[in-house]
Amino acid sequence: MLESKSLQKYRQMRNRYRDALIINPIMTGGIVPKEVWERLVEERWVRIGYTICFDCLKGRSSLISKPPIRSFLEDVAKFFGGDRAEHTFGCRAAQFAVMKAISDYVDREGSEKHAKIVLADPLCHYTTVIAAEMNNLRVVEPPHSGYPEYKVRAEDFQTKIEEIKRETGKLPGLVAVTHVDPYHGNLNPVKEVGKLCEEYDIPYMVNAAYTAGVMPVNMRDFNADFLTVSAHKSMASLGPLGFLLTNCEWNEKVFEASKAVLEWSGRTFGNKILSIFGCSVGGVPLISAMYSFPHVVERVRRWEEEVNKARWFIREMENLGDIMLLGEKPHRHHLLHFETPIFWEISKRHKRRGFFLADDMIKKGIVGLHRGLSKHIKLSLYGLEWDEVKRVRDSFYEIAERYVRKFNLDYPLPKRG
Amino acid sequence: MLESKSLQKYRQMRNRYRDALIINPIMTGGIVPKEVWERLVEERWVRIGYTICFDCLKGRSSLISKPPIRSFLEDVAKFFGGDRAEHTFGCRAAQFAVMKAISDYVDREGSEKHAKIVLADPLCHYTTVIAAEMNNLRVVEPPHSGYPEYKVRAEDFQTKIEEIKRETGKLPGLVAVTHVDPYHGNLNPVKEVGKLCEEYDIPYMVNAAYTAGVMPVNMRDFNADFLTVSAHKSMASLGPLGFLLTNCEWNEKVFEASKAVLEWSGRTFGNKILSIFGCSVGGVPLISAMYSFPHVVERVRRWEEEVNKARWFIREMENLGDIMLLGEKPHRHHLLHFETPIFWEISKRHKRRGFFLADDMIKKGIVGLHRGLSKHIKLSLYGLEWDEVKRVRDSFYEIAERYVRKFNLDYPLPKRG
Repeated sequence: MLESKSLQKYRQMRNRYRDALIINPIMTGGIVPKEVWERLVEERWVRIGYTICFDCLKGRSSLISKPPIRSFLEDVAKFFGGDRAEHTFGCRAAQFAVMKAISDYVDREGSEKHAKIVLADPLCHYTTVIAAEMNNLRVVEPPHSGYPEYKVRAEDFQTKIEEIKRETGKLPGLVAVTHVDPYHGNLNPVKEVGKLCEEYDIPYMVNAAYTAGVMPVNMRDFNADFLTVSAHKSMASLGPLGFLLTNCEWNEKVFEASKAVLEWSGRTFGNKILSIFGCSVGGVPLISAMYSFPHVVERVRRWEEEVNKARWFIREMENLGDIMLLGEKPHRHHLLHFETPIFWEISKRHKRRGFFLADDMIKKGIVGLHRGLSKHIKLSLYGLEWDEVKRVRDSFYEIAERYVRKFNLDYPLPKRG
Repeated sequence: MLESKSLQKYRQMRNRYRDALIINPIMTGGIVPKEVWERLVEERWVRIGYTICFDCLKGRSSLISKPPIRSFLEDVAKFFGGDRAEHTFGCRAAQFAVMKAISDYVDREGSEKHAKIVLADPLCHYTTVIAAEMNNLRVVEPPHSGYPEYKVRAEDFQTKIEEIKRETGKLPGLVAVTHVDPYHGNLNPVKEVGKLCEEYDIPYMVNAAYTAGVMPVNMRDFNADFLTVSAHKSMASLGPLGFLLTNCEWNEKVFEASKAVLEWSGRTFGNKILSIFGCSVGGVPLISAMYSFPHVVERVRRWEEEVNKARWFIREMENLGDIMLLGEKPHRHHLLHFETPIFWEISKRHKRRGFFLADDMIKKGIVGLHRGLSKHIKLSLYGLEWDEVKRVRDSFYEIAERYVRKFNLDYPLPKRG
């Protein structure tokens, strides 16, 4: 029996970060514009779980025309250069559908040519590995260049393909490349790897979780068979929501309908797509993505400004002293990973240890540093106004200054640029 | 290139059913209380995709303590009589996780005793079949009693188990029973089947998508190993969201962590649960379910009132003339399926054909009948106030009266009780 006292805590839940400035790289591309969430409320899309299903005639959300989900998915496909898009329960579920299609393909017809191996970049997101593991595919990685740049080269993919060929007599069943790696924000050589995949005839997936919706992404330019997208990460959408895009060659295999025929009742479910659980529900996250879509299309055109913002911020941080950006330079993405020995030194003396940095930033109204970490920090200024970007910079400076004084550390007091 | 004109339609989307009374059986248990969605906005949980992840320290939503997700899942487990609960991308994803665990179990260790067969009730939801199909499990059904009651008996499960034993020399890998069938609202004999499963030693799943959160449900009473729950269907929650509950015996198998060790980078993801894509994100649907939970716990205690409401409505509809409830009588669930020859006769003469009924109801501010159907209708009055229930009854009467007169049909004009 549940006590009503213990239930009270759910009624009383507060959002501690209700008004905070957000700098977590997984979050900044998923901030929902105020006018969008206001519309969600005004129109009462938040009133009910199955909010999009009132006019569902065919039993699948992607076929609904009121609201215009079907045409939205066509526009999403067009926007990212695919032939077809389906919405999914997030980018992880999109990757799952791809891996399932590959695993089924190898089992059914491709086993002479392709092995149940995914060749993935060594800094791919964990969801790529999980999706492979769920489908009994082994993940093999080419190396990266290591500290401090962690770059992955197309030629290392080629070397690895040749190695797999020698070892198994077959090609990998899939090459998967994360468009931008989630550790350091490096843009991977997706076009060059796409060319390789074309030459070798290997199915090719680009995971654009951190890029599609913030910067220009066209899967045709990458020569990709599959593009996986996260709406809550990079399309200014509530979660969980993602998209899977494919080309003509693969769309029927990936979006294969259920073939089950029940022996006794004779029931069949020919409108249901197997790899996305029949129908991916959508709910209020899908409505939020639709409202946000014009904004997303527009903001992608201003990507250069975002890159410049990131580069300005990198210079400012490195000027603070004993701070260095990891990953490629010049940097080409909003995900920033700094090595911060200065904060590490402070943490050794601080009673809150590694937690001091995120906590002090929160006191300044800025949330998103991983709590507990001070030796390395990851952050993003994507979508912030310039005065907000400067506020973030100033906050780091103030925190550094304060503790360099307090603990009498052997650092020159940082000078702002 | 997307034209800005075509994008305008997303900005301008309206919810046609913003203020309508909802009677769709998939929806009524998922209506979010006004105070809940108001809190979602006041606290700005709708501001961002990854709204619950600010204080995630371990890389999995179900381990987060701020907001209290971890304790919420413990309370959900307690509420439904399970040993452990994880949130999922809906009940379909919960069923997928179960079927994956069963499929893996049979492959790895159970193949001498268990076959890759799911014995499921013949009126199970399509997502049960899809989840089985995704995991290469064959679905076998016992029969139901047919028109007009469509009852399924525990002894027919036993007959089928014996048949499977004879044919394959093995037991089914799983018995799956839908607590209430989604076609007619019949309560299935979940306890009796549970006893059978115990005797035969067959893993047992109860799909409580339409019951957990509206009526008392305790998986221990059913002797179930797995309980699958839909939050957007029956827990007053935004979607997509569901829960998977298990007992001690199965929880480590179903919620097995990723075992992948990447060969080059050495990366591992030991906090990530394989069958739920590592981490099931949660997002604003999870927050809505947490706010709604005290309300859900409380409303389940008033289930008898809901059953009485449904029975009153059945009598009223059957009094209308030439209308009959399908499924068991007395009825024990809010999902009602009527055979309505009177509306079928009208549809033959109406220029909108089968669409007239749902359309006319919408004109009266009542939404949720399947558009296009008039020979049979499915509806639910769950959670409606009595004046609203009467409004629904009156609307059917008014529509029937109107067309019986207009088309001069050979029906006695209906009398309201």
